[in-house]
Amino acid sequence: MIPIDDSPIVRNGKMIILAMDHGLEHGPVDFTEVPEKLDPATVFETATHDAVTAMAVQKGVAEGYYPSYEDDVTLMAKINGNSNMWMGEPDSAVNWSVDYAAEVGAEAIGFTVYGGSNSELEMAEEFREAQEAAREHDMPVVMWSYPRGQGLKNADTADNIAYANRIALELGADVSKIKYPGSPEAMEHAVTCGGAMKTVMSGGSKTTDLEFLTTVENAIKAGASGLAVGRNVWQREDPTRILDALELVVFEEEAADAALEACE
Amino acid sequence: MIPIDDSPIVRNGKMIILAMDHGLEHGPVDFTEVPEKLDPATVFETATHDAVTAMAVQKGVAEGYYPSYEDDVTLMAKINGNSNMWMGEPDSAVNWSVDYAAEVGAEAIGFTVYGGSNSELEMAEEFREAQEAAREHDMPVVMWSYPRGQGLKNADTADNIAYANRIALELGADVSKIKYPGSPEAMEHAVTCGGAMKTVMSGGSKTTDLEFLTTVENAIKAGASGLAVGRNVWQREDPTRILDALELVVFEEEAADAALEACE
Amino acid sequence: MIPIDDSPIVRNGKMIILAMDHGLEHGPVDFTEVPEKLDPATVFETATHDAVTAMAVQKGVAEGYYPSYEDDVTLMAKINGNSNMWMGEPDSAVNWSVDYAAEVGAEAIGFTVYGGSNSELEMAEEFREAQEAAREHDMPVVMWSYPRGQGLKNADTADNIAYANRIALELGADVSKIKYPGSPEAMEHAVTCGGAMKTVMSGGSKTTDLEFLTTVENAIKAGASGLAVGRNVWQREDPTRILDALELVVFEEEAADAALEACE
Amino acid sequence: MIPIDDSPIVRNGKMIILAMDHGLEHGPVDFTEVPEKLDPATVFETATHDAVTAMAVQKGVAEGYYPSYEDDVTLMAKINGNSNMWMGEPDSAVNWSVDYAAEVGAEAIGFTVYGGSNSELEMAEEFREAQEAAREHDMPVVMWSYPRGQGLKNADTADNIAYANRIALELGADVSKIKYPGSPEAMEHAVTCGGAMKTVMSGGSKTTDLEFLTTVENAIKAGASGLAVGRNVWQREDPTRILDALELVVFEEEAADAALEACE
Amino acid sequence: MIPIDDSPIVRNGKMIILAMDHGLEHGPVDFTEVPEKLDPATVFETATHDAVTAMAVQKGVAEGYYPSYEDDVTLMAKINGNSNMWMGEPDSAVNWSVDYAAEVGAEAIGFTVYGGSNSELEMAEEFREAQEAAREHDMPVVMWSYPRGQGLKNADTADNIAYANRIALELGADVSKIKYPGSPEAMEHAVTCGGAMKTVMSGGSKTTDLEFLTTVENAIKAGASGLAVGRNVWQREDPTRILDALELVVFEEEAADAALEACE
Repeated sequence: MIPIDDSPIVRNGKMIILAMDHGLEHGPVDFTEVPEKLDPATVFETATHDAVTAMAVQKGVAEGYYPSYEDDVTLMAKINGNSNMWMGEPDSAVNWSVDYAAEVGAEAIGFTVYGGSNSELEMAEEFREAQEAAREHDMPVVMWSYPRGQGLKNADTADNIAYANRIALELGADVSKIKYPGSPEAMEHAVTCGGAMKTVMSGGSKTTDLEFLTTVENAIKAGASGLAVGRNVWQREDPTRILDALELVVFEEEAADAALEACE
Repeated sequence: MIPIDDSPIVRNGKMIILAMDHGLEHGPVDFTEVPEKLDPATVFETATHDAVTAMAVQKGVAEGYYPSYEDDVTLMAKINGNSNMWMGEPDSAVNWSVDYAAEVGAEAIGFTVYGGSNSELEMAEEFREAQEAAREHDMPVVMWSYPRGQGLKNADTADNIAYANRIALELGADVSKIKYPGSPEAMEHAVTCGGAMKTVMSGGSKTTDLEFLTTVENAIKAGASGLAVGRNVWQREDPTRILDALELVVFEEEAADAALEACE
Repeated sequence: MIPIDDSPIVRNGKMIILAMDHGLEHGPVDFTEVPEKLDPATVFETATHDAVTAMAVQKGVAEGYYPSYEDDVTLMAKINGNSNMWMGEPDSAVNWSVDYAAEVGAEAIGFTVYGGSNSELEMAEEFREAQEAAREHDMPVVMWSYPRGQGLKNADTADNIAYANRIALELGADVSKIKYPGSPEAMEHAVTCGGAMKTVMSGGSKTTDLEFLTTVENAIKAGASGLAVGRNVWQREDPTRILDALELVVFEEEAADAALEACE
Repeated sequence: MIPIDDSPIVRNGKMIILAMDHGLEHGPVDFTEVPEKLDPATVFETATHDAVTAMAVQKGVAEGYYPSYEDDVTLMAKINGNSNMWMGEPDSAVNWSVDYAAEVGAEAIGFTVYGGSNSELEMAEEFREAQEAAREHDMPVVMWSYPRGQGLKNADTADNIAYANRIALELGADVSKIKYPGSPEAMEHAVTCGGAMKTVMSGGSKTTDLEFLTTVENAIKAGASGLAVGRNVWQREDPTRILDALELVVFEEEAADAALEACE
Repeated sequence: MIPIDDSPIVRNGKMIILAMDHGLEHGPVDFTEVPEKLDPATVFETATHDAVTAMAVQKGVAEGYYPSYEDDVTLMAKINGNSNMWMGEPDSAVNWSVDYAAEVGAEAIGFTVYGGSNSELEMAEEFREAQEAAREHDMPVVMWSYPRGQGLKNADTADNIAYANRIALELGADVSKIKYPGSPEAMEHAVTCGGAMKTVMSGGSKTTDLEFLTTVENAIKAGASGLAVGRNVWQREDPTRILDALELVVFEEEAADAALEACE
């Protein structure tokens, strides 16, 4: 964990990361309601919104679409990932070298670690290599830190989520992306476990505008430094409107309902 | 995915890749009806046809036969593969380094990834290395992207094929080779899942001229950028005639029956 | 094992290593009674006490907090570790390269080896690499040497602990951290097994002041060169007081009760 | 596969490779009838016969004995192999780096690949490295290509042997060593599967002079480029006589009985 | 196998290697009767005896004690080894790089290979790396060659021991250390299997002076080039006396009883 407030992925100490690697992680099924979003250009277009401080994609999507948006989008290289056809223990292939990510223009990296998986140790070692390579390139490191695996009956308890956040701090992430643990108190505890490292909330599956924004509001109040969001933005008919509202909630610390109203 | 329209493996945005690695993947049994084709020179001869934009072979065949055809054939190095005596989960050995492929004269690489296999992650990581090495040599990267493995009951559903095409885009292929998913609509969906990446249809096992060409016609209409074909060309008595017809269907977008007629 | 008496982690031939990697190894649960200690700065503050010759932390904590304490704390890089969500055989991921540890400012390394684990051989080979890299940087090497694994019914017998200490000597540690084997005689035997290598006692879970100091006193009398301690210091309300007492017991070889009294 | 007719291991397009790695692969039991042959010098002496175009041995034997025969013997480095105490799936350890083989004086390499073994893919990848390293040193590559493994009920069918020969061609061998598949027709088919690559017959276990030479005669007539032989030469009382005969059958294409008669 | 008669570990073609890695391989239990020998200095002292041509220890012991004896002891680096808490198939961790062994002052290396273990192939490949690195440093290579593993019902038969000796020759050892196979005839056969490579007998567990020396006498008569001995020397009350006797038996080829008498 090093200071990243001067990094392009951060704005006034906070960040909104627009993620779009669902085509790999979940497959085309995530695009059923919004088939036009299968064209990554549409999501890059959304990422030009001022509220978005970085867009996280896999290598091939970055190679193909980032060049047209390099003036308006900050690229975060999602280094690992895998398809959900995979039947093994939770794990991710390293699909991108950090050196090549830098060459493509990435200014930060994202990396998944599944604490509790039978692959935890291997993922932690792959994270080590990516994190240390990112240091060479002065690229902030965001860990998607999720408890998941054979031995965890209830992976997403508040305790496990707080533990996952601490793991991110200990292993050297600059930002940790965790699930919202269900209550502001639990989120505050999780954030505290991360020390001076920034914690962002994971957007999760699509909900209503107010429900989503209220969760974000709670997370921010609990000390989160923003969120990393995918489906709750680009699965919406009007991503701009929700980003307008998110901008108010995250960067201006407005309440969810007030922000929504301001964006009508 | 980077633009490859200026690459020698592409002609007017499309391509016909003649593949002949069946001696490794299937064994001599694929040559029973056409024993003279066990001599790779006969297939290289076929590959000199104007319709063929690249010929894909394994290392040993390239070393032995490409030098005699280097003025008339564009070489695609099929980097991985294995015999069908193999009883393990779907997987392929990396038989060729990209650096040496470039030395032998390859101008593009082909690489198989089996989404859903217990070897998916390992194959994805081997693909990473090959893809990034290919970037160093400015060689387009074609992924043979096939869902296959223990956990996939019906590997070749339209959904899985569309997913496989998306995986190719996300991981950094410039061209994805997928099976024809049974209908023009399904093919169009699969092509859409690949975004700006080119999708080519896999030739599959030998069928009649009309049946084969009609499928190709449908694939092209659905947005495919051509095909990668083996047995449906070199297992035929007259490969030249089917290539004449394919040239019309793929590059001139003629109908299958009209193309066949024109080649009588 | 090389002479390290001139190293900054040693004072008059002895050492007190303050360890704080519990956030990774045990999780936030270790901080339940002392939630303020979730902020690593509080423990670094404690480490500025004269009695502490080195502070051992994981990479991320070092990156984030050591820079503010580099004039007052000697940094020991705990190179490997893992979460206790891990359900596999005792093992640790290598989370930090020695080269990068040196860059961050570490002056010594710590490394866990679980003799008897199904991962023993892999850990020993990872230790080899870390130990030889540490030699390049003139950094002393401390082995957390613990018998643990499937085949060891009673891992922490005196015999196993003595064996673990010998393993540390044979493999090239400069200091071995072992559990107190229950009696002064057993500790003396374990220390003897380590030859000229320094042995430090592991602090273990929190006990009363007198109980803890008496164990340390016995260990010192038995030839130990100090201790590596975490919870028995920073889980206390007043870490300064216990460090004052430890300083007397370890460096002045005073008795536990006398030391306690002197610190009232 | 590259042209190797100018290589020292080839004479007029053919070759007789004398192999002596049985001490590793089978153990001392192969020497029971000829205990004096446990001294590798005796077999090197035999290899000075004009008929022998190369002698294939493991690293240690090459280091110890080749220096005394470097003017009269062409050394082939058998790169991999293992003892028959090994109870795992058919596999071979890589016992020799190609660079060091070149340093010892080898002018060609030999490498075993077991198609159908659970180790097939690993062996193929090790072969890739050895083959590409051999290219750097301009050393011809001979593959011992044997179908063998858990899933092959009858490993040595004519079909499997032909397939194995094709595998050798596809993966980049310059010469393939296969078992004689039982009939001239089957051998001819196997040779055809190898394309322009040279195929040599494996000598196998010791038989009578006439039976052995007749098989060789049939193999040559079927298109084989010679043989790689061990026990059928050095287990004989008079290796010179059988080599005299082999020279006639292989290089002069004489019939077995005529050759035998000429050597009485 | 290369000529090593000029090496410092050889005296008149023979050698006595004093080994002391029992602290790692067996643990403190081997020192129960001779607790003072837990201090490696005592054994290094013994190694200054003229009869000892090399002392074999693990890395940590070499680092700690060799510097004080570098003028009087020739150091052999025992490269691999592991604790007997290990419950897996016979195997050894590589605990020392050859480059670093050279830096510490080693003039030869020792390396264990367990033929017949499920780890045989991995150990053979690790041996390859060590052996070839040793060649770079002109350090003789001694293989501890022991048949051991799941599939070997009676590992230490005369046949297996002879086979193990041959494996050492084939893989490139300069000296092979094997168990005495029970009779002079069996030892002679084993030595013969090793060709021109030197064979030394393994000392084994402690026996009476006469029994031990008689076995050595028989081994020498059978062609052995000496022995590698640990417990039968340093577990004795008077190591000097047994070394005096061994010197006579090994280097002067005296009979065991005569040698014993001479040393009264």
